[in-house]
Amino acid sequence: MQPTPDPDWSIRVRDSFARQPFMALLSASIARLEPGVCELVAPFRKELGQQHGFFHAGVVGTLADDACGYAAYSLMAATSSILTVEYKLNLLAPAQGPRLRALATVVRSGRTLTVCRADVFVGEPGNERICAAAQATLIQLADTSDQPR
Amino acid sequence: MQPTPDPDWSIRVRDSFARQPFMALLSASIARLEPGVCELVAPFRKELGQQHGFFHAGVVGTLADDACGYAAYSLMAATSSILTVEYKLNLLAPAQGPRLRALATVVRSGRTLTVCRADVFVGEPGNERICAAAQATLIQLADTSDQPR
Amino acid sequence: MQPTPDPDWSIRVRDSFARQPFMALLSASIARLEPGVCELVAPFRKELGQQHGFFHAGVVGTLADDACGYAAYSLMAATSSILTVEYKLNLLAPAQGPRLRALATVVRSGRTLTVCRADVFVGEPGNERICAAAQATLIQLADTSDQPR
Amino acid sequence: MQPTPDPDWSIRVRDSFARQPFMALLSASIARLEPGVCELVAPFRKELGQQHGFFHAGVVGTLADDACGYAAYSLMAATSSILTVEYKLNLLAPAQGPRLRALATVVRSGRTLTVCRADVFVGEPGNERICAAAQATLIQLADTSDQPR
Repeated sequence: MQPTPDPDWSIRVRDSFARQPFMALLSASIARLEPGVCELVAPFRKELGQQHGFFHAGVVGTLADDACGYAAYSLMAATSSILTVEYKLNLLAPAQGPRLRALATVVRSGRTLTVCRADVFVGEPGNERICAAAQATLIQLADTSDQPR
Repeated sequence: MQPTPDPDWSIRVRDSFARQPFMALLSASIARLEPGVCELVAPFRKELGQQHGFFHAGVVGTLADDACGYAAYSLMAATSSILTVEYKLNLLAPAQGPRLRALATVVRSGRTLTVCRADVFVGEPGNERICAAAQATLIQLADTSDQPR
Repeated sequence: MQPTPDPDWSIRVRDSFARQPFMALLSASIARLEPGVCELVAPFRKELGQQHGFFHAGVVGTLADDACGYAAYSLMAATSSILTVEYKLNLLAPAQGPRLRALATVVRSGRTLTVCRADVFVGEPGNERICAAAQATLIQLADTSDQPR
Repeated sequence: MQPTPDPDWSIRVRDSFARQPFMALLSASIARLEPGVCELVAPFRKELGQQHGFFHAGVVGTLADDACGYAAYSLMAATSSILTVEYKLNLLAPAQGPRLRALATVVRSGRTLTVCRADVFVGEPGNERICAAAQATLIQLADTSDQPR
């Protein structure tokens, strides 16, 4: 576990996640949360598919990016907001299966920038395979509300 | 315009796009299509937002990835399918506005791999600003159906 | 041409470039410089090769990264230094030829972060082909010397 | 340890590495080699520096790319050659210290494409810190010589 300056980091992360309508559209939820670690899951449904009926690469990227964002946000100050600077995603295998799971960890948390990696798995719980690997850069916006202006 | 081996490339691309349920969920549509060029647009609605009410970075990435994919696919053989190998997205400004537009062009089309770039703009038609820049690698799967098995 | 806050940007960029010993090791030089644009060239010699005798991918990446850095630095304040946050490079064709040329342009210059793209060409002047495409993020370090501490 | 189809993988990797003049120019050497794992080290000297006297980002990227390449190559067929498709590098801290060490592991090895990650450390043996994180895609060229044509 990495040190976080905010004792209420967990409430803050879950509250921010709950205010992301796109996560609700994907029926995504937080499966695990530690300082510097965030795991998100999303069940397959037809609407999330691409032309072969697998999870669309954009859904895989979204889950990886969001998991990286909240892993990073868990280590930030209570008065900061966060934005994605960039992310890079390698698709390793067709994302075919009933559930997508993105596990993100902070590689390095700096004052301004945080770098995370995420592995994305597809399958049933206990019978999964890796389908994507991501690396992302996030920026801490000091003294900025995480709510709409 | 780049040379394409398939005289029916346009029908093939539009047909594949129409078979992606996730594009329908985003209400995305093809705004422009040339051999080696694909432009996609998607209107904002609350469900596509992140915590500040902007387009979620995952939506931006999805549109960029998909535009790159179809720009690449337009230059492929009629009997090939396509998968994303990897994509990288820089978010340049908050994706706040009524419409997202991703314009992708093929940088180099090889026998196996194709590399594309995409610029993503946000705003109203005629009053947009760039909000993201992407670079993607796609792979041609020779003699593979673009339909579900 | 993009606006730069520093009237002496050209002297500042050339001076910083001249203080990079690794550029001298590669015999790299500045071929073109405008606010927001930097072009670097490096001649082939055996020492810069990989196992097939082409320019090593690391040389290609170095030239692309450095061109991006100075394109970005040209738009920064006189009292700032610069560091690379990240870069991503696609190799498009074997970098086989007498000269490598990296042309970088600023896509967006922000207060803290700047995003650039670079195209890398290989061949003789007037007879080149594209061999790589890069995208990079740079950070402005305000009130920081560009010289060793 | 991952399975490799070539019992002489170690000789093949070391021989290919020894034929890369750019690795000699960097005084780089193989510190550890297992199927799917490659660790490279390079000592600092002034010629490898950027303007602050740290290892140039291009040297960091080169070592990361090369380590990824040989981690991937160790799992390939004896009759194949390898090329880098793309790599992405995040610089996490100034690469200031006497030695650079890049540790690459294969994330997924496919028939055509292999994806690796590398961590790069700087410092003295036993007293290092992470300074970069990379992710790379490599392509296996079947029935292709790893020697110059």
